[in-house]
Amino acid sequence: MSSRRTLSTFLEEVASSSPAPGGGSVAALAGALGAALTSMVCNLTLGKKKYADVEGDLKKVLEQSEQLRAQFTELIDRDTEAFNKVMEAYALPKDTEPQKALRAAAVREATKEATLVPLEVMKHCIDALALAQSVVSKGNTNSVSDAGVSALMLHAALDGAALNVRINLSALGDQEFVGWKEDEVQSLRSTSAMMLEEIQSVVEDKLRKV
Amino acid sequence: MSSRRTLSTFLEEVASSSPAPGGGSVAALAGALGAALTSMVCNLTLGKKKYADVEGDLKKVLEQSEQLRAQFTELIDRDTEAFNKVMEAYALPKDTEPQKALRAAAVREATKEATLVPLEVMKHCIDALALAQSVVSKGNTNSVSDAGVSALMLHAALDGAALNVRINLSALGDQEFVGWKEDEVQSLRSTSAMMLEEIQSVVEDKLRKV
Repeated sequence: MSSRRTLSTFLEEVASSSPAPGGGSVAALAGALGAALTSMVCNLTLGKKKYADVEGDLKKVLEQSEQLRAQFTELIDRDTEAFNKVMEAYALPKDTEPQKALRAAAVREATKEATLVPLEVMKHCIDALALAQSVVSKGNTNSVSDAGVSALMLHAALDGAALNVRINLSALGDQEFVGWKEDEVQSLRSTSAMMLEEIQSVVEDKLRKV
Repeated sequence: MSSRRTLSTFLEEVASSSPAPGGGSVAALAGALGAALTSMVCNLTLGKKKYADVEGDLKKVLEQSEQLRAQFTELIDRDTEAFNKVMEAYALPKDTEPQKALRAAAVREATKEATLVPLEVMKHCIDALALAQSVVSKGNTNSVSDAGVSALMLHAALDGAALNVRINLSALGDQEFVGWKEDEVQSLRSTSAMMLEEIQSVVEDKLRKV
C-alpha cells in the first residue's frame, strides 16, 4: 500500500518510468493533504477559550475531514490499481475475433473504473472544500495560512483528478456515459473554482489583520 | 526526517494539533510531487522512437526536475524546522528588559528565516513550471494528464508557499525587508498563474487529440 511507503519512496515511484502511481494518485494524495490541513486547523482551534462559540461546529468539521482524509488515502492506491487493470486489459491476447471482442470489453470496463476513481476524488474535494470554508471563517486566525493551503491543495486535487477523468473518457466509445460524465466534470470544476475564490477572499481579509 | 516517514504518518502529523508540519511543509511536498510527475513524463518519453527528436531536450529536463525534486524534499523538513525555531524564540524568557530585547531579536531572526524558506519553495516552483511546460509540449502525449497535474501541483505549491511567506512577513517589523519581499511574492504569483494558463491551454489542445 502506497500509504505505508515513505514519502521518499512514493516520490521515487511517481518519478520512475512506471506510469502508476501517476497524476491520478498524486491528485488523491493532494486531497488527503488538504483534508489533513483542515483537521489541523480544527485541532489548533478546539479547546481555546477565544473560539469557544465555534467548538461544536468545528468538532463536526474535524470528524468529517478525518473521514475524508481516510477516503482520499485509500483512493491513492485505488487509482494506481485501476490504472494497472487498464494496462492488464490491453495486454490480453487479440489473435482471434472472440479474443478481440473479449479484450475490447475488458478495456472498456477497466477504463470506466479508471474514470470513476478520479471522479470520486473530485466529489470528495467539493465536500472537503466546504469544510475548508468553515475552518477559514471560524478557525484559529493564526492558522489562516494553513486553511488557505488546504483549499489550494483541494482545488488542485480536483482539477488534477478532472484531467484523469477526461483522458480516460476520451478513450471510451460509450457516448452516453462520456457526455454525461463530461458535464459532471465541468460542473464540479466550476463549483471548486468558485469555492476557492470565496475562501481566498476570506484568507486575504484575515491575513491583513493577523 | 519527514521524507523517511510513511505517507500515513506524515498525513497524521499534519492533521494533528501540532502546528508543524503544516501548510509550509505541505506546499514543499506539493512541489516535490509536481517535479516527480515531470520526471515521470520524461521517463515515459525517453527511448521512444516517436520522440527521438526531443531526446536531448528531455534528458536535460529530467536532470533538472530530479534536482528540484531533491530540493523540494529537503524543504519539507526545513520549513518545519524554521517554524519550530520561531516557536522556540517566542518561548524565551521575557521577565527583564535585556531578556525582552534578546527575545525580540531572536523572534525577528527566526521569523525572517521562516519567511525565506517558503520564498525558496516559490522560486523552485517557477523553475519546475518551466520544466513542466517543456514536457507538456514535447513529452509523451499519453501522459499529458500527468504533465497537467504536475503544473497544477507546482502552482498550488507556489500559492501555498506565498501564504506562508506573507503570514510571516506580517509578523515582522522590518519594513524595508517586508516591502521588498511582498513585491517579490506578488511577482512570482503572477508569473506562476501565467505559466499555468499557458500549460493548461496546451494540455487542452492535446487532450482533444488523445
